[in-house]
Amino acid sequence: MNAPDPLLPLFDVQSQRDDRQIAIDAVGVHGLRHPLTIQSGTVLLPTIATVTMTVGLGAHLRGTHMSRFVELLEAQSDPVDQRRFGTMVQAMVNRLEADSGAIDLRFPWFVIKHAPVSGARSRLDHEVRWHGRLHEGRYTFRMGVRVPVTSLCPCSRAISDYGAHNQRSIVSIEAELAAQTPIDELVAIAERNASCEIYGLLKRGDEKYVTERAYDNPRFVEDLVRNVAADLDRDSRVVRYRVEAENFESIHNHSAFARVVRDRLRETRTQGTPS
Amino acid sequence: MNAPDPLLPLFDVQSQRDDRQIAIDAVGVHGLRHPLTIQSGTVLLPTIATVTMTVGLGAHLRGTHMSRFVELLEAQSDPVDQRRFGTMVQAMVNRLEADSGAIDLRFPWFVIKHAPVSGARSRLDHEVRWHGRLHEGRYTFRMGVRVPVTSLCPCSRAISDYGAHNQRSIVSIEAELAAQTPIDELVAIAERNASCEIYGLLKRGDEKYVTERAYDNPRFVEDLVRNVAADLDRDSRVVRYRVEAENFESIHNHSAFARVVRDRLRETRTQGTPS
Amino acid sequence: MNAPDPLLPLFDVQSQRDDRQIAIDAVGVHGLRHPLTIQSGTVLLPTIATVTMTVGLGAHLRGTHMSRFVELLEAQSDPVDQRRFGTMVQAMVNRLEADSGAIDLRFPWFVIKHAPVSGARSRLDHEVRWHGRLHEGRYTFRMGVRVPVTSLCPCSRAISDYGAHNQRSIVSIEAELAAQTPIDELVAIAERNASCEIYGLLKRGDEKYVTERAYDNPRFVEDLVRNVAADLDRDSRVVRYRVEAENFESIHNHSAFARVVRDRLRETRTQGTPS
Amino acid sequence: MNAPDPLLPLFDVQSQRDDRQIAIDAVGVHGLRHPLTIQSGTVLLPTIATVTMTVGLGAHLRGTHMSRFVELLEAQSDPVDQRRFGTMVQAMVNRLEADSGAIDLRFPWFVIKHAPVSGARSRLDHEVRWHGRLHEGRYTFRMGVRVPVTSLCPCSRAISDYGAHNQRSIVSIEAELAAQTPIDELVAIAERNASCEIYGLLKRGDEKYVTERAYDNPRFVEDLVRNVAADLDRDSRVVRYRVEAENFESIHNHSAFARVVRDRLRETRTQGTPS
Repeated sequence: MNAPDPLLPLFDVQSQRDDRQIAIDAVGVHGLRHPLTIQSGTVLLPTIATVTMTVGLGAHLRGTHMSRFVELLEAQSDPVDQRRFGTMVQAMVNRLEADSGAIDLRFPWFVIKHAPVSGARSRLDHEVRWHGRLHEGRYTFRMGVRVPVTSLCPCSRAISDYGAHNQRSIVSIEAELAAQTPIDELVAIAERNASCEIYGLLKRGDEKYVTERAYDNPRFVEDLVRNVAADLDRDSRVVRYRVEAENFESIHNHSAFARVVRDRLRETRTQGTPS
Repeated sequence: MNAPDPLLPLFDVQSQRDDRQIAIDAVGVHGLRHPLTIQSGTVLLPTIATVTMTVGLGAHLRGTHMSRFVELLEAQSDPVDQRRFGTMVQAMVNRLEADSGAIDLRFPWFVIKHAPVSGARSRLDHEVRWHGRLHEGRYTFRMGVRVPVTSLCPCSRAISDYGAHNQRSIVSIEAELAAQTPIDELVAIAERNASCEIYGLLKRGDEKYVTERAYDNPRFVEDLVRNVAADLDRDSRVVRYRVEAENFESIHNHSAFARVVRDRLRETRTQGTPS
Repeated sequence: MNAPDPLLPLFDVQSQRDDRQIAIDAVGVHGLRHPLTIQSGTVLLPTIATVTMTVGLGAHLRGTHMSRFVELLEAQSDPVDQRRFGTMVQAMVNRLEADSGAIDLRFPWFVIKHAPVSGARSRLDHEVRWHGRLHEGRYTFRMGVRVPVTSLCPCSRAISDYGAHNQRSIVSIEAELAAQTPIDELVAIAERNASCEIYGLLKRGDEKYVTERAYDNPRFVEDLVRNVAADLDRDSRVVRYRVEAENFESIHNHSAFARVVRDRLRETRTQGTPS
Repeated sequence: MNAPDPLLPLFDVQSQRDDRQIAIDAVGVHGLRHPLTIQSGTVLLPTIATVTMTVGLGAHLRGTHMSRFVELLEAQSDPVDQRRFGTMVQAMVNRLEADSGAIDLRFPWFVIKHAPVSGARSRLDHEVRWHGRLHEGRYTFRMGVRVPVTSLCPCSRAISDYGAHNQRSIVSIEAELAAQTPIDELVAIAERNASCEIYGLLKRGDEKYVTERAYDNPRFVEDLVRNVAADLDRDSRVVRYRVEAENFESIHNHSAFARVVRDRLRETRTQGTPS
């Protein structure tokens, strides 16, 4: 899998080189699980990341050096925060002698929560994605969070004499960020716009609270993405974003789904250009 | 992968044979996707099965004939009902010159449903498993269904001034059956014991109905498995069973879970034997 | 989940409407499994699709009509080919009174193959995606295929005295197509550029053939995507594409991965515009 | 979800109690992700476990106390080794006022390896399962490991003029253990019986080594399970076991599969009883 020395005899290398002239946008390792300590805001957390590391490859080169990606990852012993993550991307591009490259980390992230009435303490897990990319001399960082919440259907509530169907939903935010942003802040944006937050541990008084709170805050899947989008619009760190919500409907075997995408950069450019 | 002729030179075969003397309980092909038409009750449905086919292998034989499993599956052009499925298992054991063997099919099965008020027609998908096994001269057939339903929490309803958390649940039944049993009958047992059935298509009047019906029929995860178990206990075709329910809690990021297992054969034998 | 009549009393609807003014890019149903007969080229095949159907929703509308998506899907009784799929997308946008919309189908597709020496017949399954989108008055169709193949590492072959590590790989093509394109043609492009094709059923003579053929055709993950890209570049129906290859390395617990992306439309526009 | 006080009015509780008289084999929480530090042998490793915790529930009790499971897990701040895991199971059964119970942990476990020629250091991830069960006064502990290895087909090697198909395989061992057993020892049993071990990081000299070593050690899926079984048979800590191997065939889109199951306890009893 490692690119051979040019001196070694290899099948058909020369002729293939002549025919194709195709640059590769991304080549590297994918699906590599690795323990990492992630630092975000004031929190330091050991977790298990699933890692993709790729670089661009010029049209004149047959293959990349796969083992170097793993060496770089193995050498990462310090905790990784948003800034050091950018340094990792730059170091990879340098080590692979490339012009562009990206690292993608996906890892569970635990937030400590206190139940709304009893104050009982428990952890809640979220799927987080960090994606750093160096391309044409510019570094961009995207963060993704997948946040479980409760949604309660406004229509079901309005038309029923009692009760209302509700369910677990996943609110996904993926945002390009121009500044340091703690994971917990994106999680909080998703949570505060749902019918109710979710908790790992609820005592009886808490269960009454979350049941009534969800009933008091019915949200369509459309409401979830709009409310989150409105909050992201107010956040100056967010350059572009995609918000999705998926309701695992309790009355169907499929999901209700909604998505809002916004790219402020493009809007700014458009506004700045007389058309 | 196919067992070689004894005449072909193979690495270390003889010495391995002497050392091990270990019979293999099951060897064959796994994870093979194949289009099959399944017949169950009066319904004939083309579906896509994920197939495992295995046989027992004596301690004196080095390997089985992997390609024969696929040949047998490819030769199956007729619709498969419960009886023909047994014939397939026997044919496989014969063709592989084995004493025992099993075929495992997992496939989506669609039930046509009518919404409770509007009568609107839609399909609902269930995961079904057929497992046929020939062992020590006896053939046994197990059927599994995974049925999505609505569960509404009795505790949440009882302690809250309004509303009650509810969610999608999966009720799984796996039963060894002594007689022909339509898939739809096992599905119906799971559905009728839930807080409410699930539908693919609901109009507004239907949504009001299912919301109120679930509220009128609160069920713990414990209730789901007990009610299904009680129904299976009354069914003379059921030799042994395992019932599981998993509630994808709308207020947590984990599931509530329950299981009841019963083996009537063992009970009968125990009762019949003076101890 | 269905949008209520404006006359029904609903929580907080008016104020939310005033605050947000956010159009929704896509809202609808997701993860719905449905049996469909797909027609592609001369092949007609019943399969099981996993369906997403969404429409755009203007800033002034609170919610879409979720049940209409399922009604449309249930009403689709004819086989779906590429042309009728476009009609389905248009019908959905009309029925939902929207300006834009997309249908996404993912389904297993079976190709009948004959083993290279024995001619033994078997099916091979591929994951296929059809994505039709109506946006700003223009309809675009994308087809994706995920094709399992064998890859054999050129480096391992070159440096080893005997043998070479090889493994199953998935070549994924996703292409926007300007004209009817049978699924099997995209599958064939992936297969003919691998170290060797994969088969459901191989007899001993076939196994010898594919073993030697893979050894005679070593391919890096980079070679896989470049060769497929070169073929797509020559195909006038392909407007833009993304090719990915993932090798489930037999010597690692992670994958080697490569991607080539090309957008001819953008290139044409750029070339046509004096800058 | 938490069992209500008997004083609270609940739907239909009394009549259901009379009808059913069905004890529940297992009820609790499922699919809960939680960070845990696992100690095994001399290794201490923070990881992320997916947890199931259940207890048996008598026929006379309507529901269990779901929140207590999560409280117990949250209170576990010390590293968990095999002995402390047993204490956790006992504490859970006590706290839930039950007669039986089980905890199931599934977590990635990383083994540090050195490449065979260069000595390059990297981690390799394995899926591990710890299952502790208290039932009828007896505690049993089962450990499962899923170990990725290389398998090279003896038949393909024997019949081909050059090369041999090989692929990643997963060897799964699940063993009931009568004494402390480091995870790494079960992993090593799986690795040493494969065609070759797998590594996270291989330099060119290492790649030559593993390629040739796999070619020198061809193994059928049957060989994998037999060789592992033979090693487990010699290990006095192993009370009963199930060994499975799945080869993700590089020449097919399905797996070759084999399983050996052995229960020494049953054999001992049978031998000890005059029949």
